[in-house]
Amino acid sequence: MSGEILKTISRAITALVSECRMHFLTKGIHSRAVDPSNVAMVIVDVPKESLESYRLEAEKTIGLDMNRIFEISKSLSARDLVELSLIDETSLRIKSGSLDYSLALIDPSAIRKEPKIPELNLPAKIVLDAGEFKKAISATEKVSEHIILKSDKNSFTIEAKGDVERMAFTMTSAELREFNGGEARSMFSLDYLKEFCKVAGAGDQLTIYLGTNYPGRFCFELVDGKVRVEFILAPRVES
Amino acid sequence: MSGEILKTISRAITALVSECRMHFLTKGIHSRAVDPSNVAMVIVDVPKESLESYRLEAEKTIGLDMNRIFEISKSLSARDLVELSLIDETSLRIKSGSLDYSLALIDPSAIRKEPKIPELNLPAKIVLDAGEFKKAISATEKVSEHIILKSDKNSFTIEAKGDVERMAFTMTSAELREFNGGEARSMFSLDYLKEFCKVAGAGDQLTIYLGTNYPGRFCFELVDGKVRVEFILAPRVES
Amino acid sequence: MSGEILKTISRAITALVSECRMHFLTKGIHSRAVDPSNVAMVIVDVPKESLESYRLEAEKTIGLDMNRIFEISKSLSARDLVELSLIDETSLRIKSGSLDYSLALIDPSAIRKEPKIPELNLPAKIVLDAGEFKKAISATEKVSEHIILKSDKNSFTIEAKGDVERMAFTMTSAELREFNGGEARSMFSLDYLKEFCKVAGAGDQLTIYLGTNYPGRFCFELVDGKVRVEFILAPRVES
Repeated sequence: MSGEILKTISRAITALVSECRMHFLTKGIHSRAVDPSNVAMVIVDVPKESLESYRLEAEKTIGLDMNRIFEISKSLSARDLVELSLIDETSLRIKSGSLDYSLALIDPSAIRKEPKIPELNLPAKIVLDAGEFKKAISATEKVSEHIILKSDKNSFTIEAKGDVERMAFTMTSAELREFNGGEARSMFSLDYLKEFCKVAGAGDQLTIYLGTNYPGRFCFELVDGKVRVEFILAPRVES
Repeated sequence: MSGEILKTISRAITALVSECRMHFLTKGIHSRAVDPSNVAMVIVDVPKESLESYRLEAEKTIGLDMNRIFEISKSLSARDLVELSLIDETSLRIKSGSLDYSLALIDPSAIRKEPKIPELNLPAKIVLDAGEFKKAISATEKVSEHIILKSDKNSFTIEAKGDVERMAFTMTSAELREFNGGEARSMFSLDYLKEFCKVAGAGDQLTIYLGTNYPGRFCFELVDGKVRVEFILAPRVES
Repeated sequence: MSGEILKTISRAITALVSECRMHFLTKGIHSRAVDPSNVAMVIVDVPKESLESYRLEAEKTIGLDMNRIFEISKSLSARDLVELSLIDETSLRIKSGSLDYSLALIDPSAIRKEPKIPELNLPAKIVLDAGEFKKAISATEKVSEHIILKSDKNSFTIEAKGDVERMAFTMTSAELREFNGGEARSMFSLDYLKEFCKVAGAGDQLTIYLGTNYPGRFCFELVDGKVRVEFILAPRVES
């Protein structure tokens, strides 16, 4: 895979946890985890078509310290080709150019159980540039620690309220890549949203699914669509 | 106005105070304030010709928390068009692109009284690139906490003296944009000058008026001359 | 000399000490020093051919606070021409453009005695891009606080071992600029190596001489070969 894919996967998971299970499935690489406070879930998928080469003897699950993988991935250039392989079922080996790195695996049973992916019936669907969302999130953090995301038939709004100020970003259907005009309104913690947005940059696509006082789904298409990262975030109760 | 004008105004004022009175006059926007220790004054003027559009029912004075305005202005691009308006005499509304921001006004009478602009008869006038001055200021701070600015018929000198070192930047008439060769010598605190210089960059014009052991005037022409920011700084006594 | 030469000299010396003796010899400028814990030595040479102009009445040794020189050199552009001269045997004067800086000299006898340069008989010689070495050093620091440098007839390896991970960069003869295939293996402290690498960037040439459990020599050709900086570093004992 490219260095950028490894960096993207490891950044997405370390947004919520340090250790995770990683599944090497016939269809590709999959991982998911819930943060220690049970507020957010991350789901990462890299279909085998996104990989330069992918060879499995059998489907396999390993346990990994993703913080270390993320640290190593930062030394790789985005375009460097990176080879991952398992050594003796005990370590993961990462080779790239002159680099040869190996990391002891963690017993998957010692890692917190993986969450079930909840079935959510969410009326609003908003598709936009992840960079736009990131910019708005970063501006609102000066006003409040949580934001309201709302959608009605006309527009999608990101709103933050402070004691003496109010900030809103409103985007109409014409300013969004896709928008179904569904009715929704939920409040979320900015700390989590900021952490999610770190995986993405301008040009990446973000699809948001919202309900009213309901968890939201934030689905990023990353590395030219080669990596899919979804975050599910519990709402905060508006006081 | 452009995002850059709003950022420049708010950075200039927050160099000295956080809350200020802002006057919307027929001729344009004006504000001035003195820092809490009465050492420096800032005067900001944006003539109405520098604004894309300017509509007043009557001249109007409002009180603003400029720190918040500065924070918001940092999320704007320099070229973004920004619309300021008053809502119900209670808040200032700032619109730009998808952003809609409003901030409660402060009762102007609750803000420290505005200073009178002193009449200063200063013999030396030096016009130079603000970027050059900024670079010299930044170099001298390694040597001392205050600098001597002096002018004679040959040149303008920025001088700093430490225990074991001395640093001087000397510019002759040929190296300055304009210079009247007036005799002057005053010492100033570097902390203030560094703060002043933050409003400007290379290419901006700075006019300095100096006397001997007298306040100095530092007049910046910013945003292609659309904003005028003047700082007046009390001298320090040379020991 | 160019501003870049002054910055390179002062950064090299301040990697190990703040005060040093500097010799103005017929053949050029020379300085050397040992760090307070006697673990590393730096040797700096600027042949007179690397200088725009060089005029001596007699060979001369002065004592300098190199931290201050390094601070000043940071305000200079790489291409600025810088003139160094002695004033009255009491200060060093540095002129560049409008800048005129002078620094009191330190009595050379008050500075720690200079080390003798040891004669080292080191079997392995490796020549590579300093930028490549710097990148590898920077990656290994996530794994350990010391690294093993080893060389055999096939390749040169930079290796770091942590509790659960191992990282190695291996370069064969074809990937190195020059390589004699000598047998060597020594462990070194990363803190020192990181400090050394700060003087260099991509494109600079680094020649490493190694033995087994023996000091290593790290010789940098800097500023287009105009400055030669050598560091000698004592090995750590492998446990």
